[in-house]
Amino acid sequence: MKVYTEAQVKAHYHMTDAIEDIEHLFKNMDAVSQTTRVVIPTGEGAKSMLYMPCVHLGKQQGIIKITSITPENPQHHRPTTQANIIITDLQTGKHIASLDGSYLTRLRTGALSGIASKYMSRTDSQTLGMIGTGGMAYEQLLGNIAVRPIKKVLLYNRTVDKATAFQARVSEQHPDVDFEVVTDVSELVKRSDIINCQTQSLTPVFNADDIQKGTHINGIGSYRPEMKEMDNRLFPHASQIVFDDLEGVKEEAGEFIEADEKGLFSFDQHDDDLKSLSLNGQITRHDDSITVFKCVGAAHFDLAVALGAWDKLNSIEND
Amino acid sequence: MKVYTEAQVKAHYHMTDAIEDIEHLFKNMDAVSQTTRVVIPTGEGAKSMLYMPCVHLGKQQGIIKITSITPENPQHHRPTTQANIIITDLQTGKHIASLDGSYLTRLRTGALSGIASKYMSRTDSQTLGMIGTGGMAYEQLLGNIAVRPIKKVLLYNRTVDKATAFQARVSEQHPDVDFEVVTDVSELVKRSDIINCQTQSLTPVFNADDIQKGTHINGIGSYRPEMKEMDNRLFPHASQIVFDDLEGVKEEAGEFIEADEKGLFSFDQHDDDLKSLSLNGQITRHDDSITVFKCVGAAHFDLAVALGAWDKLNSIEND
Repeated sequence: MKVYTEAQVKAHYHMTDAIEDIEHLFKNMDAVSQTTRVVIPTGEGAKSMLYMPCVHLGKQQGIIKITSITPENPQHHRPTTQANIIITDLQTGKHIASLDGSYLTRLRTGALSGIASKYMSRTDSQTLGMIGTGGMAYEQLLGNIAVRPIKKVLLYNRTVDKATAFQARVSEQHPDVDFEVVTDVSELVKRSDIINCQTQSLTPVFNADDIQKGTHINGIGSYRPEMKEMDNRLFPHASQIVFDDLEGVKEEAGEFIEADEKGLFSFDQHDDDLKSLSLNGQITRHDDSITVFKCVGAAHFDLAVALGAWDKLNSIEND
Repeated sequence: MKVYTEAQVKAHYHMTDAIEDIEHLFKNMDAVSQTTRVVIPTGEGAKSMLYMPCVHLGKQQGIIKITSITPENPQHHRPTTQANIIITDLQTGKHIASLDGSYLTRLRTGALSGIASKYMSRTDSQTLGMIGTGGMAYEQLLGNIAVRPIKKVLLYNRTVDKATAFQARVSEQHPDVDFEVVTDVSELVKRSDIINCQTQSLTPVFNADDIQKGTHINGIGSYRPEMKEMDNRLFPHASQIVFDDLEGVKEEAGEFIEADEKGLFSFDQHDDDLKSLSLNGQITRHDDSITVFKCVGAAHFDLAVALGAWDKLNSIEND
């Protein structure tokens, strides 16, 4: 078994690869087989192990993503979430590679927002507003930059210092984009063409009344029923709401579960997912439409990027 | 992540370690948490991926065993079953090691038969009869040798050549034991104090009428409902029947599922497992009792040996 670190994967597999590989997999979903993820609690609160297996019957390759959630880790300067992906060659039955899965998880999540922005946001979207500048933020930025002519990025974080630190880092990497830290989230919301939320907030991080016509919003934060990142009073005003994975959203996305209960939104009348969006291409939208994408993740997205990264790493080694 | 090959694990972790570690875990089963195993079919017939996660909350270490089943592999001189075990440190959340799991699976299965023989067979058992000399056989031999003063081993295999090849290999490794290939399974059954079956047979590999009083039988072969290795007409004559894992046997062990249906045996009246046997010590048996152990495997046995092997490998490296 070959082992690839985060740095190795990062050096050879990028956002445009991830977007391409996920959209390519959407065309071959009949070849994908997966089970619901397995969770074993390992301590207090959210401390747990998550197991997400998925196989590609066509390619005859399978993966499992093994994720540890260690809530006390930030106190020890370690990441809360640590993922590892094992790839098995189903033709020979050999377990061929271990890939650090943390970067790949962030990358595929950024790619999902990128694909949503690509098909849902106004094509002339130039201002991106980012709410939350934590561990997932950078790849969310990359996802949007890959698909829209973003010139301005507004950054908001509950702890302002973290937004400033993020600004310093990304300004250097993206000199052609203007980054601005804002301390008033209303201002960010009103000025943005695309709003991207990546927080673990239990209460809405923006006020629905502030959302301007023509805005597209990506929400990737709420992944547990108690998390309610997006103000769900917005949902009745949205012309289109798309999920990466309906079953996952029903179980995990707090603001949608609450909205369904309150009658602000109905899962029963909902069948738009990112896959059909990608297969059908750009939606018909009016310039003043409000659109929403909600992402919780699923094993087949990990499959797409893990097999894509493995292909790249393996071909480089065989050069 | 550190990667350990089969040869490395084999060099530092042995049968006596496995028996000790499994019996030690029996005393700490309250600290173990596991889910039912996850199976994803990946092709024709039995071709599939198996995932068995298990965590030790006390030690704060978790494992998942990832197994590929590739039925067409023997044609290509590759093993049907290939396992890999990933160990996660739950304290830090780090994925710390990848261990080849094929040897560890064979070893823990041999250790389970060893533990059963240790507590159930006559203490003066000297003759071991082995039915099936395939991939699992060697560690089954080791398990019995570790606990009883075995002087004679009778070997039976459907293809005699394979029994002869096995004899040649083990004779060299165990010069103090006399190995004899027999072509008549009845003869083997009648002459053995302990009978150990490791086949994938769909029909009984011995005739219940041949079983002598005072015999102990280990059956490790039937792991699917269609497999019926042991002649279940024997079960009404057994003074004690013990399982490694009742729930697993109910779902997988063909001869017991059939016996329960036919009224030869009842799962409802059964509560003997290897754990209570190990905790209570040697059973009271008459010299003429017939006893049976049936093993299908479970994730906590893999946990015991994987963590034990990791401890050894890690301590050697830190020397």
